[in-house]
Amino acid sequence: MTTSLSAELWPDVQPETARRLMLAGVEAFAQRGYHATTTRDIAGAAGMSPAALYVHFPSKAALLFAISRYGHEQTLALVENVVAKETDPVQRIRLIVEDFVAWHARRHTVARVVQYELQALPEQEFAVVAELRRRIERIVREVVADGVEDGVFTVGDPHTSARAVLSLGVDVARWYTERARQTPAALGKEYGELVLRMLGARTDTPAAD
Amino acid sequence: MTTSLSAELWPDVQPETARRLMLAGVEAFAQRGYHATTTRDIAGAAGMSPAALYVHFPSKAALLFAISRYGHEQTLALVENVVAKETDPVQRIRLIVEDFVAWHARRHTVARVVQYELQALPEQEFAVVAELRRRIERIVREVVADGVEDGVFTVGDPHTSARAVLSLGVDVARWYTERARQTPAALGKEYGELVLRMLGARTDTPAAD
Repeated sequence: MTTSLSAELWPDVQPETARRLMLAGVEAFAQRGYHATTTRDIAGAAGMSPAALYVHFPSKAALLFAISRYGHEQTLALVENVVAKETDPVQRIRLIVEDFVAWHARRHTVARVVQYELQALPEQEFAVVAELRRRIERIVREVVADGVEDGVFTVGDPHTSARAVLSLGVDVARWYTERARQTPAALGKEYGELVLRMLGARTDTPAAD
Repeated sequence: MTTSLSAELWPDVQPETARRLMLAGVEAFAQRGYHATTTRDIAGAAGMSPAALYVHFPSKAALLFAISRYGHEQTLALVENVVAKETDPVQRIRLIVEDFVAWHARRHTVARVVQYELQALPEQEFAVVAELRRRIERIVREVVADGVEDGVFTVGDPHTSARAVLSLGVDVARWYTERARQTPAALGKEYGELVLRMLGARTDTPAAD
C-alpha cells in the first residue's frame, strides 16, 4: 500500500490521503466484502482515525462510490480513446479488448470491487455508475453493429456478442493473479484475437495463444 | 424459498431441513457476502434456531462448503455427461457450453456464491473444490486440444482458449437475471455458437443472436 501505487491507480484524486483511503477500502472490500468491512477497519489500515476518514468520505458508501465511479470512468475512457483514434471496426474491437482486458488483469483487485460490489451502492450512486456502464456497452455494441454493416463481422444481433465481449474482459478480474501465465498486455492481445474470431472477422493469423 | 426450489437445486441433499438452510445461506451470502452473514441470520431466514442449524452444519464454513461443493459437482457432472455421450470435439464443446452457460443463468444466485466466495473457504475445503475446478478445466482443455489435433479447431495453446470458454460461462452468473432477454437455454445456444467461432470451428450458420 504505497503512495506510488495509489497515485498510479487514481492519478486524478487529491490529496494523497484520499487515495490511501481508497486503496485501503479496495483491499478490505476485496478480501472480506463491503458489508463485513467497517470504516474503522479502513481508516486503521490506512493508518488514520475514523474521524480523519470522514474528512474525505462522509460514509463507507461514499468511499465505495469513489472507487466504483473512478473504475468505470477509467474503463469508459479507454474505450472512448480507442474509438477516437481508430475508425475501422476490426481495429476498434481489437484495441478495445486489448485495453479492457489488460486493465482488468493489471487492476484485478480494484476491478473486483468495481465489478462485484455494484449492488452495495445506494440508489443514486448506483444510477451514476449504471449510466457509465451503459455508455461502455453502447459503444461496444455500436462498433460491433458497424462491423456487421461493413460486412467484416458476421453476427446476428450485436447485443449478445457485445455483452460476451465485455463479459470475457470483466471475468479476467475474477481469475487473474500475478502468478498468471501471461502479462496483462499479452493476455489482452490473445483475447483480442479470440474476440475477433468470435465476431466472425477474418484475421490473418490463428489466435497466437 | 420453497421446498420444491431447494429440492430442485440439491436433489441429493437430505433431509429437507439441510436444503432449506443451504438455500437461506445462498440468499444471505449472495446479498451481503459470506463474512457479513452470521449463522444466526441464516437460521432465522430458514425459520430455525442457531442450534438447529448446527445439527446439519457444524459451522458457517461447513455450510458454504456444502453449497460450493455441490455446485462444482453439478457443473463437473454436466461436463462429464457431455463427454460420455458425444465423441466429436465440435459437438462436445457446443454441448458443454450450452449446458454450462444455461446452468449459470438458471442457477445464477447459487452460482454467484459458488464462483465468488471461494476465497472464504477454509484451506482443506478449498483444496477439495479446487480439485473439482481443475477437473472441469482439464476436460475442456482436452476437448479443445482434441479438436486442434483433428484440425477442426485452430487455436495455438488450448490453455487460454479453454479458460476463455469457461470464463464466458462463469460470468453469466454475474449479469444474468430473470429479466434477461433470453432464457437460459437460448443463451446457452448462442454462446455455443460464439465459442465455436472463437475456436475457429467452421459452423454452418452465423451465430443466431
